[in-house]
Amino acid sequence: MTEGTQPSADEARPVSRSRSELIRWMSIQDANSAGFVHGGVVMRMCDEAAGIAAIRHSGCRVVTAGMDRMTFLQPVHVGELLHCVASVNAVWSTSMEVGVRVESENAVTGEVRPTSTAYLTMVAVDEQGKPIPVPPLRTETPIEERRQREAATRRRNRLAEREEIREARRTAG
Amino acid sequence: MTEGTQPSADEARPVSRSRSELIRWMSIQDANSAGFVHGGVVMRMCDEAAGIAAIRHSGCRVVTAGMDRMTFLQPVHVGELLHCVASVNAVWSTSMEVGVRVESENAVTGEVRPTSTAYLTMVAVDEQGKPIPVPPLRTETPIEERRQREAATRRRNRLAEREEIREARRTAG
Amino acid sequence: MTEGTQPSADEARPVSRSRSELIRWMSIQDANSAGFVHGGVVMRMCDEAAGIAAIRHSGCRVVTAGMDRMTFLQPVHVGELLHCVASVNAVWSTSMEVGVRVESENAVTGEVRPTSTAYLTMVAVDEQGKPIPVPPLRTETPIEERRQREAATRRRNRLAEREEIREARRTAG
Amino acid sequence: MTEGTQPSADEARPVSRSRSELIRWMSIQDANSAGFVHGGVVMRMCDEAAGIAAIRHSGCRVVTAGMDRMTFLQPVHVGELLHCVASVNAVWSTSMEVGVRVESENAVTGEVRPTSTAYLTMVAVDEQGKPIPVPPLRTETPIEERRQREAATRRRNRLAEREEIREARRTAG
Amino acid sequence: MTEGTQPSADEARPVSRSRSELIRWMSIQDANSAGFVHGGVVMRMCDEAAGIAAIRHSGCRVVTAGMDRMTFLQPVHVGELLHCVASVNAVWSTSMEVGVRVESENAVTGEVRPTSTAYLTMVAVDEQGKPIPVPPLRTETPIEERRQREAATRRRNRLAEREEIREARRTAG
Amino acid sequence: MTEGTQPSADEARPVSRSRSELIRWMSIQDANSAGFVHGGVVMRMCDEAAGIAAIRHSGCRVVTAGMDRMTFLQPVHVGELLHCVASVNAVWSTSMEVGVRVESENAVTGEVRPTSTAYLTMVAVDEQGKPIPVPPLRTETPIEERRQREAATRRRNRLAEREEIREARRTAG
Repeated sequence: MTEGTQPSADEARPVSRSRSELIRWMSIQDANSAGFVHGGVVMRMCDEAAGIAAIRHSGCRVVTAGMDRMTFLQPVHVGELLHCVASVNAVWSTSMEVGVRVESENAVTGEVRPTSTAYLTMVAVDEQGKPIPVPPLRTETPIEERRQREAATRRRNRLAEREEIREARRTAG
Repeated sequence: MTEGTQPSADEARPVSRSRSELIRWMSIQDANSAGFVHGGVVMRMCDEAAGIAAIRHSGCRVVTAGMDRMTFLQPVHVGELLHCVASVNAVWSTSMEVGVRVESENAVTGEVRPTSTAYLTMVAVDEQGKPIPVPPLRTETPIEERRQREAATRRRNRLAEREEIREARRTAG
Repeated sequence: MTEGTQPSADEARPVSRSRSELIRWMSIQDANSAGFVHGGVVMRMCDEAAGIAAIRHSGCRVVTAGMDRMTFLQPVHVGELLHCVASVNAVWSTSMEVGVRVESENAVTGEVRPTSTAYLTMVAVDEQGKPIPVPPLRTETPIEERRQREAATRRRNRLAEREEIREARRTAG
Repeated sequence: MTEGTQPSADEARPVSRSRSELIRWMSIQDANSAGFVHGGVVMRMCDEAAGIAAIRHSGCRVVTAGMDRMTFLQPVHVGELLHCVASVNAVWSTSMEVGVRVESENAVTGEVRPTSTAYLTMVAVDEQGKPIPVPPLRTETPIEERRQREAATRRRNRLAEREEIREARRTAG
Repeated sequence: MTEGTQPSADEARPVSRSRSELIRWMSIQDANSAGFVHGGVVMRMCDEAAGIAAIRHSGCRVVTAGMDRMTFLQPVHVGELLHCVASVNAVWSTSMEVGVRVESENAVTGEVRPTSTAYLTMVAVDEQGKPIPVPPLRTETPIEERRQREAATRRRNRLAEREEIREARRTAG
Repeated sequence: MTEGTQPSADEARPVSRSRSELIRWMSIQDANSAGFVHGGVVMRMCDEAAGIAAIRHSGCRVVTAGMDRMTFLQPVHVGELLHCVASVNAVWSTSMEVGVRVESENAVTGEVRPTSTAYLTMVAVDEQGKPIPVPPLRTETPIEERRQREAATRRRNRLAEREEIREARRTAG
């Protein structure tokens, strides 16, 4: 990538730029004692895929600040391929929501099943780990717009819930 | 444990019965390329601790159905001890909310720092993986009562958010 | 995938059907003592990607019979993404040549560098591990045709080299 | 921990200060080919727990100098929780004996079984790896006093055995 | 190995038959947070090498019953080769003492340093894990005879120490 | 090794000096989902053994440039010992061909089976990773001479094949 094509830090960057994918073959090393793939293995891959998406958008180091609404729809089997696809859904001053979709695939039959979704909050940081501003995000399709709106909904609800719980504690105290 | 002390499936079980702890020394194998402990390592330990708490309460196999409100307050360093403490906060027909608190400890100085919290939804399942009823939960302290109320708040908000997003998609479509 | 779209074992299958990809983020766990990614990690990913491609083409279990002409063009760094893309190049009675290209990507700069190529011979086997016939391959583009010709060249040369060495040993003996 | 509560290097430190615990869920990754937890996994956890106890007592870097009287009473199963509890039993000029007890727990039944004991000799070292003095130990309970006496017995016997074997070699030679 | 050369279970087997060796290259995955090879890695390799020696002598499944007098003479560095050589020193009814010597080698300079020794008690077991008789051992060199005598010394001392500690507890109680 | 016995960089070094061996016990962690040892595990051990042989011959850092003619003759089982023996076959200006033979051994029966062979091209590099001259090789036995001749055959054929494929592309284009 030449210097000329690198956008400046203020310029909005398209969602597509952040799109990231990890694909791994699940082995016995990934299994829990019941013989299915460990939920923690899926979580870790989601965290990695989200980290790459956030790095691609921001162009700098990032740290995971939170994870929300992670679902496990069905068990993953040893011997299946696990696909994690991540992209930045929305951007605030120094943080981003990254959405991750996980699918498992049986390589023999070609069958693909949705496995998990997760929404991670990633923060851009400088070399000392201090939060720094994130470039704006440019949505380019109706699906990207919808995801941006839903990210705002999740964030608003998360902050409201924190306030609701704080208030209840104060009242109870 | 003798047969006689094992409570029947219908009898309420105290929160304290589910309390679980995992403690591991973070090594280079747990580090990301920036030299801190990988967020995915913390996620996986939370998932394990929550699984043990849910097994202790329900007395049967469990699967992870979701993870919410996981926070990462500060980075964990290689060479620190990581403590994950989990207990069942609330119970619905076949599912449980398990809360997990994570602390990191510097063994040389004895300093302990809060690192993460997470709330996992675990489902009790039979040998075929079909959901089965979970015994009722008995809170015994004001803190346990508060946690039970807050679990109900989180669940209500999660279901409301799902409905809110579904409705928005319908309107937009 | 419905039964109707599954080709019969005799019917030629397009190269595109076998295309497989693995993508992993290289971590400290993948490093050798000089700080670069261990060549053995790349070899293992190539073997996995080739295995998936062979399973997709043949629809059955496969074993690795050989690896040839694997190159390591430049070192891979911890923190880079490693992409392995594999597809079946040519098919003989019970074996396939699978070609794998490996690229490493710096997620911050977006720079992509070719890292390795490898050619693996995979054999389709039944449940007892006995070789079984592989469906024919259908090339659909000039590049696929070229790869098929080059696979034939590699195979012819490999068999000729085996004969050449055997003959030299006989003469020397 | 404030500077004021940190004892000086000469002041005796209570046994309780060194108490350390590691708790891990045994997974398939910990199994040997017979399906039980690998003895080496238990040894490694004991070494880690002993290291933490020695660091807590001495407040500095430590190295393992020896391991004695490690027993394996019964096999540990995949899916069980392994608890390693360590504390400093006795202190000599630059070395400490750390005792470790290992128990395995079946999370479903709550059954706990003693699994192993081990006695490790840890040496306090400076940044260059040179042995340095260890603060004195203060026993506070009859059990701690007994453990201190037994550590002295083990040490005396170990040194006597070394002499006995040396002498026998000299005589034989 | 033909049926004819397999000794019967009653026939003494030479020490040389049990000799076993493991050789591994120490990588970053084997390091502790101080950058040296983890003591637990060495312990695990010793346990494996001892297991193989005991299997070679007894011709059946074995379990580790104890480990004694393990020493760590000097730290092992990442990038060195670790050699573990084990052989059966002595045999009792159902148990064996296996001695293990560990050396580390710098492949660049060829320098070899003694690193550890350990003595493991291995028990031969049947399919149900019940102890079964071990074939007699035949020493063939003065060194093997000396090792057999020293194993007897260690065993006698271990049993005497157990009695000594038991007696002291009874007196104290 | 004393300074006096270290040959100068120009002096030919015997093949025997480069001989290297790695021996590991295959565990569940090395298995693929069919229960056999993963081909990638064998590849990685070959790469390590070849690296050690090349370091022993050249006395400096080396990188893997290629792998050829790797064969997998029969599957390796969990619980078997894997032996990789490597030595330098031939030397060119800055590169070496290292041959690796792999055998698997059943410790209970003592049965040894040939498993794999591989030929790796290793390049000697300085601290900046730049290729540097390799000392000449001295063959001392007829087998070593034969291996040197066969290495030359493989190299000539590899370069000829590269030219053949390049020429075919030019003609086709």
